[in-house]
Amino acid sequence: MVSIAVMGHGVVGSGVVQILLTHKQKLFSVIGEEIYVKKVLDLREFPDSPISDRFTKDFEDIINDLEIRVVAEVMGGIHPAYEYTKRCLKAGKSVVTSNKELVAAHGAELLEIARQENVNYLFEASVGGGIPIIRPMNQCLVANNVDEVAGILNGTTNFILTKMIEDGMQFEDALRLAQELGFAERDPSADIEGHDACRKICILASLAFGKHVYPDCVHTEGITKITLEDVKYAEKFGCVIKLIGRVKKLDNGKIDIITAPMLVPEKSQLANIDNEFNGIMVRGDCTGDVVFYGKGAGKLPTASAVCADIVDCCMHLKTRRFLFWADGDGSNIISVKDSVFKMYVRANGSGAVAKAEKIFGKIKSIEDGKRVAFITESMPLCEFEEKCEKLTGEGIEILSTIRLGDL
Amino acid sequence: MVSIAVMGHGVVGSGVVQILLTHKQKLFSVIGEEIYVKKVLDLREFPDSPISDRFTKDFEDIINDLEIRVVAEVMGGIHPAYEYTKRCLKAGKSVVTSNKELVAAHGAELLEIARQENVNYLFEASVGGGIPIIRPMNQCLVANNVDEVAGILNGTTNFILTKMIEDGMQFEDALRLAQELGFAERDPSADIEGHDACRKICILASLAFGKHVYPDCVHTEGITKITLEDVKYAEKFGCVIKLIGRVKKLDNGKIDIITAPMLVPEKSQLANIDNEFNGIMVRGDCTGDVVFYGKGAGKLPTASAVCADIVDCCMHLKTRRFLFWADGDGSNIISVKDSVFKMYVRANGSGAVAKAEKIFGKIKSIEDGKRVAFITESMPLCEFEEKCEKLTGEGIEILSTIRLGDL
Repeated sequence: MVSIAVMGHGVVGSGVVQILLTHKQKLFSVIGEEIYVKKVLDLREFPDSPISDRFTKDFEDIINDLEIRVVAEVMGGIHPAYEYTKRCLKAGKSVVTSNKELVAAHGAELLEIARQENVNYLFEASVGGGIPIIRPMNQCLVANNVDEVAGILNGTTNFILTKMIEDGMQFEDALRLAQELGFAERDPSADIEGHDACRKICILASLAFGKHVYPDCVHTEGITKITLEDVKYAEKFGCVIKLIGRVKKLDNGKIDIITAPMLVPEKSQLANIDNEFNGIMVRGDCTGDVVFYGKGAGKLPTASAVCADIVDCCMHLKTRRFLFWADGDGSNIISVKDSVFKMYVRANGSGAVAKAEKIFGKIKSIEDGKRVAFITESMPLCEFEEKCEKLTGEGIEILSTIRLGDL
Repeated sequence: MVSIAVMGHGVVGSGVVQILLTHKQKLFSVIGEEIYVKKVLDLREFPDSPISDRFTKDFEDIINDLEIRVVAEVMGGIHPAYEYTKRCLKAGKSVVTSNKELVAAHGAELLEIARQENVNYLFEASVGGGIPIIRPMNQCLVANNVDEVAGILNGTTNFILTKMIEDGMQFEDALRLAQELGFAERDPSADIEGHDACRKICILASLAFGKHVYPDCVHTEGITKITLEDVKYAEKFGCVIKLIGRVKKLDNGKIDIITAPMLVPEKSQLANIDNEFNGIMVRGDCTGDVVFYGKGAGKLPTASAVCADIVDCCMHLKTRRFLFWADGDGSNIISVKDSVFKMYVRANGSGAVAKAEKIFGKIKSIEDGKRVAFITESMPLCEFEEKCEKLTGEGIEILSTIRLGDL
């Protein structure tokens, strides 16, 4: 019997307890031992839980219980999850988590503590919910050098964009629908401003390239400025607009990482990932493109990934799974100004196409009287911004600009 | 240093040696030890190989070398791979393989020997080439009961079907093109008759449901009878034709497993998997649908999966990875006659639609003079065949029938 604790009995935590109880027999047959949920930490009370007698409001009950070898941290947020995780690891307990905010903020430090203490810190559920991604990247693709990772990493924004694309809904209406259906929080800013997707691409970038990438080093744009007009022009260019987290290794050894809405060509595997689903493309030097698809959030999908990590810890109580990256100072990340993309521009003004051609060179354009949309060749953002200024100087109003993700 | 041997220096085997040499530093950083290719078994000579001095034509050189702890069997075929694998496992060496034919034919026995000898027998590369699938199913989805697995598991046939769908090529022309491009063997029968896809769905079914499924227990149809007319009717029904390996758990605890061409609705994630790519959908009771996509074959993709298994073995020289299924006698598999599908029928004759409606009940039909195509409601194959006989008795010629895969 391996005793474990679950910290947090919210959506994911209650799912973890539920799966461990309902799938007990199957998990027993894999591990050869029972997983026993000895303690559940939550400030609330859950008298209807089948294990209501094992709830505690005091973290000390967990940290002081030497029988508890594995702890699932599914509280979310940085504090006190960070302090609790550190103390658990230092007390020789392995920790598994779905807490992407914490992993993105303190992953390198927590992985280093786990290494020192010879325990595991696993976080399969922190990216892509129930989609296997951390373990496949870390183990199955271990014999690859990863060249690029790009993904639709946030289900809320993907749902909103899908409604805009397929049903012609306005952003605000699509957001309201997402909230009604439970896909978006009452305060949706972490999703729609891109912060959630940014944390996830930071985790994948840290894993792929071995150095921690902190979210505040990453240029992040949300989808609040995307209009139906952009969606329709994108379609005319054979693209759909998706919020993409992307990191790419450059020839100089540095990485180019960004979270931003992008025009994605319809033939791309990521273009067909709709509604609340997530999809992640990993480009390896040996495998080529591999894509993982599924529900990126939700109680049971996320909880099942947490449970898989619990199982892995139970099977590796004395040995460590190799999952590690060093701390990073951002020096391996290029400035967003140097980041190269083809750019989509929507503009307004007399002779806009001719003026854009004069300034940008070769473009693909769609003209509709004074209204125009065009896509430039690839260029660094600094060059693009300069040229936009020139275009504005020629009396053309630039209404929106979006990157083209050649995925 | 961990010494390993590679048996077979063909496409995959030479790729394994290449990756182990070119990615030496990366793999060292993961394992903390060097992987040393001590012997390569092949009857041919490779004087240009950078490790030409380590080739041997004698298997005894490998089996008798106590330093060799891990053996990659990438010979293909059943004999002598089966005998060699058994002897290696019994000698306490872990074995990894890309040999789907061997795993499908003798997996249960070899896994049992590995268990007894406390070594590992891993085969990530046997399904989906470089696409992570065995390990994700076995580890990441461990807290799920799998309800269904369905996939495009053979790149050759998918390439041929894509050319028929997108370019209107005839089957024979598409096959010839596949051979010219190296996607199809000179003798393409294992691919186009569905045997290769069948072996792979057998491996996935064995893994998902814990009992070995032997290929000769599985109804298998290839794509040689698919015509351009069927492809065009499928499109009119909003579908594409794909060769699908599928296994599904039924309420009575038995499984329904089949390899056959199917009409796949265009909105399905599997419908967009084109050309030589593979895609595998796993439906878990917690995660819902998860899809894995990538190159299902090829030298480096497949070799990189073999190398990932080598790394896993090197990190688990003294412990076992849990990967196991028991032997099976086919008693858990329902007869193909009881397998339930909606069916697509292409037919010819006066009043075909009215006659079909009388016999099949509700159908969706497309009429074009005497030529007609229709899709029935769901029914077991035995019922469908009876009804087809009745339709033939009414003077209607049935030209083709294909299952509808509601994936």
